[in-house]
Amino acid sequence: MQKRFLIPIAAGAFVSTLAAQSPADLRVDGDRLNAHITELARIGATPEGGTNRVAYSDADRQGREYAMTLLRNAKLDVSVDAAGNIHGRRAGSDASLPTIAIGSHIDSVPQGGRFDGQVGSMGAIEVAERLGEARQTLRHPLEVILWANEEGGTIGSHAFASGLTEKQLALVTNSGKTMRDGITFIGGDPSRLAQPLKKRGDLAAYLELHIEQGGILDARHINIGIVEGIVGISQWEVTIEGFANHAGTTPMDQRHDALLAAARYVDAVHRVVTSVPGRQVGTVGRIQAFPGAYNVIPGKVVTTLEIRDLDAAKIQTLFEKVKVEVAAIEKATGTTFTFQSTNTIVPAPTDMRFRTIIGDTAKRLGFTTNLMPSGAGHDAQEVAPIAPVGMIFIPSRAGISHSPKEFSLPADITNGANVLLQTLLAIDGK
Amino acid sequence: MQKRFLIPIAAGAFVSTLAAQSPADLRVDGDRLNAHITELARIGATPEGGTNRVAYSDADRQGREYAMTLLRNAKLDVSVDAAGNIHGRRAGSDASLPTIAIGSHIDSVPQGGRFDGQVGSMGAIEVAERLGEARQTLRHPLEVILWANEEGGTIGSHAFASGLTEKQLALVTNSGKTMRDGITFIGGDPSRLAQPLKKRGDLAAYLELHIEQGGILDARHINIGIVEGIVGISQWEVTIEGFANHAGTTPMDQRHDALLAAARYVDAVHRVVTSVPGRQVGTVGRIQAFPGAYNVIPGKVVTTLEIRDLDAAKIQTLFEKVKVEVAAIEKATGTTFTFQSTNTIVPAPTDMRFRTIIGDTAKRLGFTTNLMPSGAGHDAQEVAPIAPVGMIFIPSRAGISHSPKEFSLPADITNGANVLLQTLLAIDGK
Repeated sequence: MQKRFLIPIAAGAFVSTLAAQSPADLRVDGDRLNAHITELARIGATPEGGTNRVAYSDADRQGREYAMTLLRNAKLDVSVDAAGNIHGRRAGSDASLPTIAIGSHIDSVPQGGRFDGQVGSMGAIEVAERLGEARQTLRHPLEVILWANEEGGTIGSHAFASGLTEKQLALVTNSGKTMRDGITFIGGDPSRLAQPLKKRGDLAAYLELHIEQGGILDARHINIGIVEGIVGISQWEVTIEGFANHAGTTPMDQRHDALLAAARYVDAVHRVVTSVPGRQVGTVGRIQAFPGAYNVIPGKVVTTLEIRDLDAAKIQTLFEKVKVEVAAIEKATGTTFTFQSTNTIVPAPTDMRFRTIIGDTAKRLGFTTNLMPSGAGHDAQEVAPIAPVGMIFIPSRAGISHSPKEFSLPADITNGANVLLQTLLAIDGK
Repeated sequence: MQKRFLIPIAAGAFVSTLAAQSPADLRVDGDRLNAHITELARIGATPEGGTNRVAYSDADRQGREYAMTLLRNAKLDVSVDAAGNIHGRRAGSDASLPTIAIGSHIDSVPQGGRFDGQVGSMGAIEVAERLGEARQTLRHPLEVILWANEEGGTIGSHAFASGLTEKQLALVTNSGKTMRDGITFIGGDPSRLAQPLKKRGDLAAYLELHIEQGGILDARHINIGIVEGIVGISQWEVTIEGFANHAGTTPMDQRHDALLAAARYVDAVHRVVTSVPGRQVGTVGRIQAFPGAYNVIPGKVVTTLEIRDLDAAKIQTLFEKVKVEVAAIEKATGTTFTFQSTNTIVPAPTDMRFRTIIGDTAKRLGFTTNLMPSGAGHDAQEVAPIAPVGMIFIPSRAGISHSPKEFSLPADITNGANVLLQTLLAIDGK
């Protein structure tokens, strides 16, 4: 029964009816969209009900072939760029205008779900297909872009807008292949990635539909999230030096216990991050105590710090506050802390006009909305340096993501795709 | 120059002078004792100045041969029991009396020091040798016992007083050999260890001289520690279950962060253990967060708890207090804790009469004393179930132990051996 959605209906009579509609009344085929998501999920399906389709794997390539078939069926001109990103292009009515791109990714984390990236990818294809069926030609050229290796660090979109270094190309990915070999494997050309593939001005807009991956929309029963931006991320490796000693013979008041200091630090991070209003998050995710025995007072702890916020200055302020707390902990525990910055991703705000258009569109379609940051990274943040970007979120059940338990309702997926379609039309019309 | 101490002087004229002394004036030969410690330290010496003479290794066997030579030179009858413990025996004047044993161990931790166990072993040999030179025959039979594999869990003394299980014999030790093969390697007979080698009544007393391995005597400039007992040790593996989630998309108030819970637990352990007077210690030495990435909220933490005290009831009370704190942490963080008992060693109090004798003896010799628990485990605790035991501590510089930096002054070692000698004479005389 689902086969009907795989081999699209011959456009004939169906489309002629649609063509009579006003563009503002145009809606995606939600059944077809959700059937595509279900079909795609069969590729790399895991026994747990999730998806294992890591970039550059056989399953990834199979998923890409499926997506390219859908793009061709939607009457788009399909190509693969040097980074392995898939482009499905359709000309606009005004050849002088830059392209509007819509898209997401179809690769997954090693034990991922069926919705992360896939909703936005299948949603973008559905929007393009529906526009074609309705004979709605945009003023701007339209491109559906399915970014390669998003889960490995937004690699395809980073190459697209910023290029890749030799060092990045040499990294071994989750597929077991180096980035270089992986890109070749999916039809890209790693020798052409030292320079960005596109520059500022080449895109009029990039719009991405995505699952929230957090629990805010679900908890508050809101249909659509209007993304204010993708948060900046600062990460540090934290080393705490105390003095290892015999846990039996060293009195409590003569210890320099690096793990006691680490414990107070973890609690301080939570206290500092929750001490000011806002949606910033701070996480300590990794910890190891040395030597790490029941009966030895830890002399050294290596742990981490990650702070995310839409405002880079706020991240810095919170970090400074953590360091003030740490100075007191050092004194009380006889230990010393060292913070080594290991990663900094700058915040990527979305275009303010797009936020307004997404909000107005969603309201016109009868949906409730929430203006919110994206705490997770997305391809949109890589595109942001060269083009205005907009992002649309739909609810993730219980906020679960990167898990076989990841789930979004078919109705929410259809809602999101309709907001994408109408937002695209609104931006194209301005 | 040091060779003089290795090949003991022919007893002749020297001893005849000593024989004229009153037993109360008898003193060990401190130079010889310290020279023996220096000689022993050459076997398994490490570049860092420490000792690597783990039980059942070639170096251990070489150290044992050296010790047996010293025992024979001290005119003791040498034998090795089924557990590999070395016995140097001399008959007493009253054949009806049970044996008084003195001793310690000569095996080391993998990167250990030159004093732990070695001071008491060489001290006991020196005491026996001096008594022989002085023609001081005790009423009781005297045995110097050098326990096998103390650092691997007081194995030799445990076998002696309690036997070993098949499971214990199958364990792989730090030497790379199983316990069974290791015991055979040093001349024992593992097939005879299902039953204890000795029973209550076989020993009149066991006395052990040892370095403190803590910093109390050194910090307070006290010569001699009178050990009240060897503390009980209770250990638990602690598992904390939260919920792993995306560190970017999960708001601070929607987390079930197992590491935040663990942090508060570590701080609570410190708070509880220091909340009541006494010398109890509590340690969290090991911790791991899962999945253990910068950008994932830990869903699970596995950590530890160890509490030591001379009073088993106090250990239990402190554990209950920790659990009360944990209940509040569980509620505040949305996590659950599980405590799995992994090891319980009951406290082993020393004989009260022996404490008095050691104290009186030390004072008579002009030494300052401190009544204190032993936070570290010792062979004496294994002997305690079948015989009254006494322990004498000497200072460890800065409390450092199980390290190449472990150090005790030659004068302190000589003092300790003299207290052992005079305590032995006092007990024998009663």
